[in-house]
Order: sequence, then C-alpha cells, then structure tokens
Amino acid sequence: MSATGQFLPPPPLDPPERLLLGPGPSPVPREVLAAFARPTLGHLDPHFLRAMDELRAMLWPLFGARAGNGRVLALSATGSAGMEAALVNLLEPGQRALVAAHGVFGARMAEVARRARAEVTVVQSEFTEAPDMEGLEREAKKGGYAVLGIVHAETSTGVLADLSPLRTIADRAGALLVVDAVTSLGGLPVEVERHGIDACYSATQKCLSCPPGLAPLYLSPRALDRIAQRAAPAQSWYLDLALLEGYWGTDRAYHHTAPIQMIYGLHEALRQVHLEGLDARFARHRVAALALWAGLEALGLELAVPLARRLPPLTAVRVPAGIDEAAVRRRLLETHNIEIGGGLGSLKGRVWRIGLMGTGATLSTAERCLSALAECLTQQGHTVPADPIAAARAAVR
Amino acid sequence: MSATGQFLPPPPLDPPERLLLGPGPSPVPREVLAAFARPTLGHLDPHFLRAMDELRAMLWPLFGARAGNGRVLALSATGSAGMEAALVNLLEPGQRALVAAHGVFGARMAEVARRARAEVTVVQSEFTEAPDMEGLEREAKKGGYAVLGIVHAETSTGVLADLSPLRTIADRAGALLVVDAVTSLGGLPVEVERHGIDACYSATQKCLSCPPGLAPLYLSPRALDRIAQRAAPAQSWYLDLALLEGYWGTDRAYHHTAPIQMIYGLHEALRQVHLEGLDARFARHRVAALALWAGLEALGLELAVPLARRLPPLTAVRVPAGIDEAAVRRRLLETHNIEIGGGLGSLKGRVWRIGLMGTGATLSTAERCLSALAECLTQQGHTVPADPIAAARAAVR
Repeated sequence: MSATGQFLPPPPLDPPERLLLGPGPSPVPREVLAAFARPTLGHLDPHFLRAMDELRAMLWPLFGARAGNGRVLALSATGSAGMEAALVNLLEPGQRALVAAHGVFGARMAEVARRARAEVTVVQSEFTEAPDMEGLEREAKKGGYAVLGIVHAETSTGVLADLSPLRTIADRAGALLVVDAVTSLGGLPVEVERHGIDACYSATQKCLSCPPGLAPLYLSPRALDRIAQRAAPAQSWYLDLALLEGYWGTDRAYHHTAPIQMIYGLHEALRQVHLEGLDARFARHRVAALALWAGLEALGLELAVPLARRLPPLTAVRVPAGIDEAAVRRRLLETHNIEIGGGLGSLKGRVWRIGLMGTGATLSTAERCLSALAECLTQQGHTVPADPIAAARAAVR
Repeated sequence: MSATGQFLPPPPLDPPERLLLGPGPSPVPREVLAAFARPTLGHLDPHFLRAMDELRAMLWPLFGARAGNGRVLALSATGSAGMEAALVNLLEPGQRALVAAHGVFGARMAEVARRARAEVTVVQSEFTEAPDMEGLEREAKKGGYAVLGIVHAETSTGVLADLSPLRTIADRAGALLVVDAVTSLGGLPVEVERHGIDACYSATQKCLSCPPGLAPLYLSPRALDRIAQRAAPAQSWYLDLALLEGYWGTDRAYHHTAPIQMIYGLHEALRQVHLEGLDARFARHRVAALALWAGLEALGLELAVPLARRLPPLTAVRVPAGIDEAAVRRRLLETHNIEIGGGLGSLKGRVWRIGLMGTGATLSTAERCLSALAECLTQQGHTVPADPIAAARAAVR
C-alpha cells in the first residue's frame, strides 16, 4: 500500500525464454505468440466467427475425420476440461463406464466418470505397462457399458496405447469409445474415423505447440445422438456440448464469451501444423524421439517404457541410483534454461519426463537436452559411458 | 486439400481494430496485449509461480478483502465457469438455494444450481427491475437455505443491485452469500468483506479490460469451511476448488496446466487497474456513464433502467419504434468499427447494450459512440432532437 492507501502493483512480468521439454507446455513458435497479441474482437464479430469456422475446418483433418461427419470444436478451458466434457455429456447417472487405467490420466478419467455418477469399472495396469486389452475384453463381454474410456498417449508414463482393437472391444461392451489424445494430437496419427472413436479430446500445449488454455474436441455422429437423447441435461452447464453447439454452430447463440486470444493462438498453431503437413510432422516427432532415446541410453540411462509401446513425444527415463532427481531438474532450468518434468503418481521421484513436442521435436533440441543432461549428471558424479550426441545422430542417420 | 492430400490452411488472422463497446470484451490496453505475447513458461516454473502469487496479491484489494482472509484465485475458464465453480462447490445435492433472478444471469445461476442437484427457489423480478429484496426476505425467513445467489451487475439489463441488505437476508436464510460480479469488478466497488460476501466471481473481459478466458474468484473463510466439510467431492473435477487450492497454494500440486498467456494478460490488466487506483477507476466509469446517458437522452432515446438502479459500465437503451436494431448494430460495426450489443432474453430486439468498461470508460469513447449512433439513427430516419456531444459534455462539466 502507498501512503494514500493505493495498492502498489508488482513490476511487469519478464518471463525468461525457456526451452520447454517437459510434459507441456511445449515450445511455442513466434507466429503463434504474435497471434495472441492481435486486436481483441467481440465474440460475435463476423471476423471472429469466421476464425472459429476456419479453426473447425483445420481440426477435422487433424482428428482424421471428414468435415461435417460429427462435430469438432475447441472448449474454452484446458485439456482436463476436455476429459470432463466428454464424460459428463456421454454418461448419465447410473450408467456404467469401463476405463483402462495405466497411468495418472486413466485414473483421472475414472474419477471424473464417478463424479458424473457413473458406475465405473477400472481395468488397471501397472505404470509403464500398456493398457490391459485382455482385461478390457473380459469386462466388455459382460456388456451394458455406456462408455469405454482410454488414454491414447499416457503423459504420466510415456506409454502409447494401440487404438486398433478398441472399436471391437467397445462394440462388445455396447459402449461409445472415448479417447484421450492430449499428448498425441498433432504429434502422431489419431485417426478417429479409422479407429471408430466416438469422442476424442486433446489440449493445445503439447504437440500443437500452442500455449495451454483450450481443449480441441471431436464427437462422432453416434456421440451426438447420445447427447441429443439424454434424459436430463449434462451436470455441467459450462461444458454442456448441446448448448455449446448453439454457439459454434449456425445459430451463433450466446452461451459464454469465447476466449478470443486463445482462439487466435490455436488458429495460428493449426495453420503451422497444416503448413508443415501431418505426415511430415509425425515423422519429425518420431525422428527426434529416436535421437533422444539413443542419446539417453548412451548417457547410461534406462528408458522406463520398452520400445514397442514407447510414446515418441514424451519419454520417461529412470533416475539412476544416487542421483538427486529434483536437483538435476533445477540445474537444467537454472543453468541451462531447459525445463523437463518429474514423475507423477507412482513414478514420482523415480523418472524424468522429457517432451519433444511440437516445434520442440527436432534433432537439435534433442541434442541440446542431451548435452545439458550430461553436464548435470556428471556434476552429480554419474559416469557417462558414451557420447550421447554421436549416439543420437547415429540413430537417425 | 492439395494434390498430395495435404490440407491447405487459411491465411493468418488479421482482425480489425474495433472499438469494443458491447457487453464485453471491452477495449484492451496495448500493454495487456503485449503481455499475451511474452515467452511461455512451464506451469510449475518458479517465475510463473511468482506471477500467480503476484496475481493473487492484486486480487485481494480488488475484491475488497484483506490478503489471506479467505482465498482468491483465477479459474482457468471464463466467467460462466466462475459461476459454476461457486455453486457446485458450495452446494451439495438436495440442499436448498435461493436465487434472485432479475435478468439472464440470475436465471443462469438458478439453472447451474439445479444441475448441482440443489432445490432452487427463484425470486423473480422483471427484466430492468431491481432484485426483489422483499421477496428474498420473505423466502429467507423460512430458513434452511445453503446458498443465496444474486447478480451484482446484471449484464443483460444494466441493473445494479444494492449489496448492503444481503448479508442480513442471507443470515436469516442460513445461507452463504454468492455474488456475481462479472460486470462490476474493477468498474465499481464490490467490497466482499464490507458486504459479508462468501463467494464472488468475475470475468476478465469487462471492467478489467483483459481479453476473456479467466474467472477471478474470491471465497470467504466460511465458504472454505463449507468446502472442507463437504460429504462428497464437487461434481466437477475441473472446477473442484479443494483440488485447485493444491495448485494455487503452497503445495503447488499438479492439477491441470494453467493457461499461461491468460495469466500473463490478467497480471498486466490488474497492474493497470492498480496503477490507476481503484477510486480513480470507479470515478472514471461513473463519469463516462453520466456522459453517455445524457448523450443518449439528447438523441431522443429512452434508457431502459431508471437512474437509481442504473449500472455505469453497461447501459441498456430502448430501440425506438420503427428502427431496425440489428441494422444499426451492423452499420456501427461495418461503417464506424464500433461494437455494441443487442438485447438478451426478454429484451432481445428491444434494447441495445452499450458498455463503457475498463479503458473504454472515457468521455471521448462515449462521444465517439454517440456520434456514430446519431449517424446510424439519422440514416434510418430517426430525428435527433438535441446535440448529444454537447449534452454529454454538459453532464460531466
């Protein structure tokens, strides 16, 4: 407070330029940051409505759906709200949900479904394991499920789930198939139509290289039917997909005020995705990951997830015995200006999580990370057995 | 699609610079837009956590609460999510809620409370009327209410509610007092402690002059106790205030990934608020409104709300007979680059809503609006009886 009772505010923010290699947010291209600073429009301005339409047009191919076959939009909240929107709109109280939990986000799906008053059956696997498809099939045979939920790319463990058997399992269960694509959309194929996915949500701050704040969402025609036939409205007014379509659709009915700058940012991020091309982008994520993995092994580190189910955009690597994992992360941040993530849930303190996502998925980023990590590990007395940079380059030669 | 099957994205967005005088978003200062383009940080970066702490420090005096006496934070979604968060966290299924509805947003409070499975009693008044305090008192006497909800500044009608009798009424009802300050916070005093408010939410895109996307929220110690004593978790995981405190508080536990650029923007917007000073800002909103009101009357227009309960930041003005209200708004936008709002609910097609909010609350903005409106009305054959600019200036001389 000043002498006159006026509150003295802090100085303007001056955030440092980090290399963001944690589980998100990922590095943001300058074009996307610039889009955030464009003049604010009203949420019903014709120019803004056109931006929303263009954004939808760019989401269809990203999700792997034909334009108009179902619905796409971007929810005005972060990825976790995408999960909640999918579940509270597709489940009614007392209905049954089957959830595969092989990490923190699968467990969260189960919790969100419980809060929607569904009866939830969880098919659990260990962290770093793949989802238990046999367990899911066994449960599915019992039938009577309204929703089958699974995480495509488990951000907590770096495990990639195989989507191809899920439609058959969901059909056996009688369920709509809900897929969490938070850490896959834009970094590897999701292909909702090919896999018969009914609801798929993501986030902006992972492989799309946009700052966090929106949840891109796809719904199949079947999911739309389910929503239209609900006995009662969804418990969330804010995330009510029937009401939201009134705004995103041709009615343009006021629901809430859209977060204008976030839409600008995602519009530009999606433009960047399509200018690069999906196949090129997926290949880039894969190459960068191969380089990182080889380099981490050259550093004498153990990858937490076997190659067959390892997720390119996000890698969990075990903390060697005797190393202070938090101190390594702190030094990476403070000395090298690089952010990586720690473990979550049962992996807390036991792994680091390194994301090469969006524009961060390059060989040079992988090399910068490996060099810095080598320095931090050596500083704690870890012996580096081989040259990580040479190994990284050899892996992608 | 290109020949190779690659999707051809639209060109970059190039939104025009509008003068935003609708019900929000309001004009955004250049410093705030610039903050949106600052480098993205991780949501657990020490620099970002400090930004969150500073943001909290700036929210306390804005809400009129002593730092630490309760809780303040900014929810990662728009103002409507603030409403939902307050109600789903403070109400448990089967509890009773008393809601004053004198516009669209009061009615929305009732709907959101119903979706939280509360038994809702609505005390209704006509649009443009004040909330029915006698009706509230009559209901409150019956007791047994968990929540009394009311809108401070009805954005749909431009009516300002008197907060001073509400604590007594809420006490009689046995209720926590929930106040919607979406269109008042930063534009006129809210003073949660003085009025004994237990939960108060707002939005960024009104009198704070920040683009939409976050919901500033205050909770009293009593509200926190209520949340701590819930029998079951809130139905919304995303808006669960107990979990959110784990992230905003000293634990810094991961809940969801905060919308980094939105926090930058609100941080800067709050800085601008406090650099100006609350009293000066409130006075500026009042003066701009007085000018606008006098000018509108000089134009031969009727204000929808009597002076005694008229809200300075947002004015509803009746559409004269024979005027095509949508055509006026369209011409204002296309010819004058000025956005104003149409009516909502029962006022749809019958009023315009003109917001002089945040940095838009100045005499010169009011004059620009009046001149443009005069031109649009004259163009439709309306006779302007007096000089609106002279009237506006005279009102604030």
